[in-house]
Amino acid sequence: MKQKLEPRVVIVGAGFGGLYAARTLARFPVQLTLLDRKNHHVFQPLLYQVATAGLSPADISAPIRWVLRRYRNVEVLLAEVIGFDLDAHQVRIGDGYELAYDYLVIAAGASHAYFGHEEWETVAPGLKSIEDALEIRNRVLLAFEVAERQAALTGQHPVLTLIVIGGGPTGVEMAGTLAEITHTALAQDFRAIDPKRARILLIEGGPRILPTYPEDLSQSAQRQLQKLGVEVLTSALVTDVQAGSVKVGSNSIRADVTVWAAGVAASPLGRSLAVPVDRAGRVLVSSDLSIPGHSEVFVIGDLAAFRTEEGKMLPGVAPVAIQQGHAVARNIGRDLKGQPRAPFHYVDKGSLATIGRAAAVADFGKIHISGRIAWLAWLFIHIFFLIGFRNRFIVLFQWAWSYFTYQRGVRLITGEPKLARTGDLETSNRAKRA
Amino acid sequence: MKQKLEPRVVIVGAGFGGLYAARTLARFPVQLTLLDRKNHHVFQPLLYQVATAGLSPADISAPIRWVLRRYRNVEVLLAEVIGFDLDAHQVRIGDGYELAYDYLVIAAGASHAYFGHEEWETVAPGLKSIEDALEIRNRVLLAFEVAERQAALTGQHPVLTLIVIGGGPTGVEMAGTLAEITHTALAQDFRAIDPKRARILLIEGGPRILPTYPEDLSQSAQRQLQKLGVEVLTSALVTDVQAGSVKVGSNSIRADVTVWAAGVAASPLGRSLAVPVDRAGRVLVSSDLSIPGHSEVFVIGDLAAFRTEEGKMLPGVAPVAIQQGHAVARNIGRDLKGQPRAPFHYVDKGSLATIGRAAAVADFGKIHISGRIAWLAWLFIHIFFLIGFRNRFIVLFQWAWSYFTYQRGVRLITGEPKLARTGDLETSNRAKRA
Repeated sequence: MKQKLEPRVVIVGAGFGGLYAARTLARFPVQLTLLDRKNHHVFQPLLYQVATAGLSPADISAPIRWVLRRYRNVEVLLAEVIGFDLDAHQVRIGDGYELAYDYLVIAAGASHAYFGHEEWETVAPGLKSIEDALEIRNRVLLAFEVAERQAALTGQHPVLTLIVIGGGPTGVEMAGTLAEITHTALAQDFRAIDPKRARILLIEGGPRILPTYPEDLSQSAQRQLQKLGVEVLTSALVTDVQAGSVKVGSNSIRADVTVWAAGVAASPLGRSLAVPVDRAGRVLVSSDLSIPGHSEVFVIGDLAAFRTEEGKMLPGVAPVAIQQGHAVARNIGRDLKGQPRAPFHYVDKGSLATIGRAAAVADFGKIHISGRIAWLAWLFIHIFFLIGFRNRFIVLFQWAWSYFTYQRGVRLITGEPKLARTGDLETSNRAKRA
Repeated sequence: MKQKLEPRVVIVGAGFGGLYAARTLARFPVQLTLLDRKNHHVFQPLLYQVATAGLSPADISAPIRWVLRRYRNVEVLLAEVIGFDLDAHQVRIGDGYELAYDYLVIAAGASHAYFGHEEWETVAPGLKSIEDALEIRNRVLLAFEVAERQAALTGQHPVLTLIVIGGGPTGVEMAGTLAEITHTALAQDFRAIDPKRARILLIEGGPRILPTYPEDLSQSAQRQLQKLGVEVLTSALVTDVQAGSVKVGSNSIRADVTVWAAGVAASPLGRSLAVPVDRAGRVLVSSDLSIPGHSEVFVIGDLAAFRTEEGKMLPGVAPVAIQQGHAVARNIGRDLKGQPRAPFHYVDKGSLATIGRAAAVADFGKIHISGRIAWLAWLFIHIFFLIGFRNRFIVLFQWAWSYFTYQRGVRLITGEPKLARTGDLETSNRAKRA
């Protein structure tokens, strides 16, 4: 250990894991560099609100360097990490630059997995970034505009169908909120079509939605969704996704918009470490979250596969990433003081999944809650964790506003949408990324 | 005149002119169709706030069909108008569709003019749409990120230079606000560069900025800009614009970001009417705003060239468009009642241009105001006219927030910016549009 210079710590990724690691580490005598491809941290649990026109991107994001502006020993750089030289202790970023480290914390997260059907991505975008959320918002709003236009000009149009693939928390949230906006915010604004007649389908391959929740909450969530008007298909295997349709088994279903919420794949930076990974590409970490053979390199958050002492794998959720960020920071602090590291212990405070307006399920171990109370718990916990006072206030106001008026304030179609006919919606926001 | 069926009125464009025409017309017994390429009305006077990360797009926009939702005789369609058949009384929209009208109101507005140098557009975007504003926001924020990265990795970087071309109200507003954010919101957040050292240049070809204002206000505006740290060049002709530089006369100036605010061109739909237009492509309208030979066709707003009885041409500003929208609607109402039409009279309530934080100029005829009072007048007038209560409240809050904290809440770089080196900033939002 170098004693003269403060150790250089590099953190890759400013999601929950990286950002909380940075905040805790900043209090130790280290030189910290935080790298991210984006200039902003995104509060991912509320991305679906951007995708459904309830909140603006800025309401759930904050510039990373603004969040960390008070820590003078923290440098934030907008940079894409392309690999590591673990022996030389270097992070490789674009343009031939390298960054040396004494400690490395990799929190590069996960993106969508299409299970070998990457061609489905342009047709059925997932929901991981602000850009994804804007793309889905554009597609949903545009579907209604195109149907209205077609009905006004030709006197007919097919029943609008919005399909969400994947019955985990994101899929449940998206399907519930889509049902909500078609029945409330959009209901009065059209003349030639009736948005209330739109079909919302949630398709889950397994036998029940919210498979990581207790069975009674899965059933409650399904009932709450159905009450909102969502058709829930379980044990339904998606065999093909095309522009304008989704195939379930051998049945083809018309689809104006398809959203993918069926799987995640760890960042390819995990595999680039050449240490053991699981099937999803997550790095198998030690009890202190370091990787085999390199005690100075840690992997946390969605990119880490951590097995608890009880043999359970931790899920890829924000509380795990946050606690791992803190844990790694404190272990580096212990190293600096010459103290032994502590193993990571996850404290599970329960799980909450929102479904729609005043609809949610909550699993607090022995206590299972559904409906309005679970939704209120969800609301306050999420607003409390939103980073920055400004965001918290605005989000609360927007929410109160849309709750009491049934309006969605952010119904903008941006970019240059192709005004194609129904069944071929693709906005150029997406086209440019493909 | 058909007596049995209500007359069909088609309005093209939902800017200030089209939207206010629609609101007034909706009270008459007509079937109204409002066509726009976008699903939202934009409050253009505040676009520069989106471009400088002060407001979110949704704060200054509202879905057109939401604004008009209470008028059951109004149909809003997302559609690109490609031409007119004036003899057959038809509007041609994409996909081979036509829309018949008894009255036609063309309010298609204007876009940027590059005076024969259309190749400058990708390098120096203008500020007319939400997409333009997001593109400029991305470029400005990215310029600081790229400089920080370069300085951190190599120990050096050139002084950041942001250039605004055109000293009209938009250019003055942009330059003042850019100076403001580099000295306040961004000042504390960087480690390797000092945002306060950034150069902001405002380049005007004529002898003074704000040429349509009285001379004393032009001088006051220039002093206020210089106090904010803007270098103002007047009588400075831009001869070339390239990625990374702007040529003034024979001098080349480094430029990290260039913004175009130097000229507007009327929508090509004006020329497509085959009636006389002025040099900017604006349609020369009669005293009732109709076009020669077609008393059932009106042109209003930025697309109209209207000469007052005193022989003055009206400027392309929101109050003119709003008053023309009302006037056309009332004249159609008079037609329906068999009353004679009234000629259009513009009531000039004065002009306001904002410069930055508590800096503005106001021309109320005999009364000229500068500084904080002019800025307060500007602030309240603009918030008052923002459409929809929600927006008004949020904008006021955001403004108060950023005024007292010097923070900019919306500093997001979205899309997939190329992490190129200084001088070659182009985000894919733009690339996709080029």
